[in-house]
Amino acid sequence: MVRRPDALQPVPLEEARQIFFDALEPAHFFELIEEEIFTREALGRIASRAVFARRNVPHFRSAAMDGIAVRAVTTLHASAQAPASLRLNRDFVYVDTGDPVPEEFDAVVMIEHLQAIGADGVEIRKPARPGQHIRSVGEDFSAGDRILEAGAQITPEAVCALLSTGHSKIWVKQRPRCVFLPTGSELVAPEKVEAKELAPGQLLETNSVLFESYVRRWGGQAHLAPIIGDRALALSEAFESALDNFDLVAIGSGTSRGRDDRTAALVREYGRVLVHGVAYHPGHPVLLGIARGKPVIGVPGYPVAAWVCLFQFVQPLLERYAGLAAEERPAVTGVLTREIKSVRGYREFVRVCLEKTAAGYRVHPLPGGASRISSILRADGWIEVPEDIECIQAGQSVRVQTLR
Amino acid sequence: MVRRPDALQPVPLEEARQIFFDALEPAHFFELIEEEIFTREALGRIASRAVFARRNVPHFRSAAMDGIAVRAVTTLHASAQAPASLRLNRDFVYVDTGDPVPEEFDAVVMIEHLQAIGADGVEIRKPARPGQHIRSVGEDFSAGDRILEAGAQITPEAVCALLSTGHSKIWVKQRPRCVFLPTGSELVAPEKVEAKELAPGQLLETNSVLFESYVRRWGGQAHLAPIIGDRALALSEAFESALDNFDLVAIGSGTSRGRDDRTAALVREYGRVLVHGVAYHPGHPVLLGIARGKPVIGVPGYPVAAWVCLFQFVQPLLERYAGLAAEERPAVTGVLTREIKSVRGYREFVRVCLEKTAAGYRVHPLPGGASRISSILRADGWIEVPEDIECIQAGQSVRVQTLR
Repeated sequence: MVRRPDALQPVPLEEARQIFFDALEPAHFFELIEEEIFTREALGRIASRAVFARRNVPHFRSAAMDGIAVRAVTTLHASAQAPASLRLNRDFVYVDTGDPVPEEFDAVVMIEHLQAIGADGVEIRKPARPGQHIRSVGEDFSAGDRILEAGAQITPEAVCALLSTGHSKIWVKQRPRCVFLPTGSELVAPEKVEAKELAPGQLLETNSVLFESYVRRWGGQAHLAPIIGDRALALSEAFESALDNFDLVAIGSGTSRGRDDRTAALVREYGRVLVHGVAYHPGHPVLLGIARGKPVIGVPGYPVAAWVCLFQFVQPLLERYAGLAAEERPAVTGVLTREIKSVRGYREFVRVCLEKTAAGYRVHPLPGGASRISSILRADGWIEVPEDIECIQAGQSVRVQTLR
Repeated sequence: MVRRPDALQPVPLEEARQIFFDALEPAHFFELIEEEIFTREALGRIASRAVFARRNVPHFRSAAMDGIAVRAVTTLHASAQAPASLRLNRDFVYVDTGDPVPEEFDAVVMIEHLQAIGADGVEIRKPARPGQHIRSVGEDFSAGDRILEAGAQITPEAVCALLSTGHSKIWVKQRPRCVFLPTGSELVAPEKVEAKELAPGQLLETNSVLFESYVRRWGGQAHLAPIIGDRALALSEAFESALDNFDLVAIGSGTSRGRDDRTAALVREYGRVLVHGVAYHPGHPVLLGIARGKPVIGVPGYPVAAWVCLFQFVQPLLERYAGLAAEERPAVTGVLTREIKSVRGYREFVRVCLEKTAAGYRVHPLPGGASRISSILRADGWIEVPEDIECIQAGQSVRVQTLR
């Protein structure tokens, strides 16, 4: 048997993730830099400091209804039998919702509860309670109230609250700058080629699309480097420049074993390889490293392998970077319609599509190995087959982690 | 009692929505215009046509493993006892994963299963099956395969599949252009004011933030018009220009009854008022209209009222515009911790926050009426109290529609 000197020694998934995070912690990777941005552009960002109201909302006493502002005491004995008669500008003024209530009045009576008496008089038939239908100062937010906790994600409602309480700018955690370096002289950018022009051996580079889309969804900035051929110098230069300019470097490292070795050598030049090969399918030849304090991920070249790698390493990394608790992926339970086989010692990610029936979900495993984009295109989610299970039979109940 | 001539006759929620949609249907509002855009920028958009593969993926026979390409027939009798000896360039060539497999070979043997014999020979101890470890032409997508249905939302995986099958551009439904016109001379843009500069009677305009954030989330383009004061001519001009340039016009119509009337008059000038007043709280003075075939929504001024209006009318409108089935809002069930009172004949939207306990969710109603941003800031979701229920007691199990 032709053994390669560096045959991968796959590491169990959880252990691999732990090794990776443990190496990044002392490198201060998870300590984010903050930046001040316009609140109106902060949707989805993570507040880096607690925020407190700078003003009272409302900042003046105002009418909560259309009607008249009165002194409650002048209405004290009003009843249906003996209505109180009030005169405009002496006993009351008209107010619309939102209008300031003049200092001398302490209640608002709704216009629906008034009886007009001549041009400048009204009658009311019920006493007004002091404070009635008046929005008091600070009733929504008092100056000094805590509006947001540090670490909170900014929602549309938070943007409203921040703007209302005097914060047109806000300190947020910087979004990690993540770059994808596609490597391999066989790769071609899809936009650069027409249907007929593809030569045998050429491969369209589409893993960057997955990287870009998901990194943005998970709160990172995604940048795509141009395709880098196989020359060692070009690779080395691109990697060094990536380490200078980005917080996380992903190397699209081709699908063949030779490519893997090259990525490992490249990472060793600038830092350390922590894990090379993780015990799962599809996509075990993942590389996890650290260089100049920055995480480096060697992303396997097969599309499904790249896809699994993003969910298993990039998502938890970005969530921890943002200070968010790892997101619990929505899951459903259903009945498996075809047997699944798996290799002992490896976790298997089986892409499935879901069929909703009256009796619950039916779970259809999707055909095809790591190379098939069609199996992720059609996937509603996946089943994780544990390392010690070799087979799940049709008819069994399985838990599906859903994508959308 | 001082009755206003146009006191609102509130319409039940479902009926209001139906009246609105029924008026828009013949106006062709739901027939979207399509546009061709770059596939790489199409994430989240809706395909307006079915898409079919323009090429085979892969477009050439390739090695699925690192190893050697052989003629299966030459390995037919190979066994551990009698290995087959093969010579380089006569019986086999080396291939890496992804390499084209030359025409004359029909199987790949993994490098792990080879025994090197001298510099240009190998031995194998097992027959190779024809086709083994070869990715055949069109195995992922065959030219002509349907990649996407018309009406499908474009996922990261779909972008990959489209680029791979020769579609660097794609026809998608145009995103509806939605505009928000904040009206009222008391309104001030939050960015234009410092904490101390707010005068009594002034109100910060923040409903546009909710409109903008949620319209984008639901697939629309959101535009904000500058604040329009109370002059009839300015309002009329702004509305006319909005009808010329946008597909959906929302008028932030202030909080007072007088303002409502003005919005209604404005809509009548250019089209029809369909519904004025919907039987729910908070925020019943919603106006639904149609002008020049376009939906017009009078959004009540109180923040919570504006917020409910967005979920009740703008979201279903945009979902239907996009051709998506109305999204089923994620919901949880929990135990109510405080009594809720509601007005008979009105549906009540009660903002709540959720507390997760070992025994399940505890559901805390949030204090405050329609004017309090704090009640939507803290909300995890809401309870809908049906029209015929006046009270839900503490301890009852309730269904909470969750926001995030």
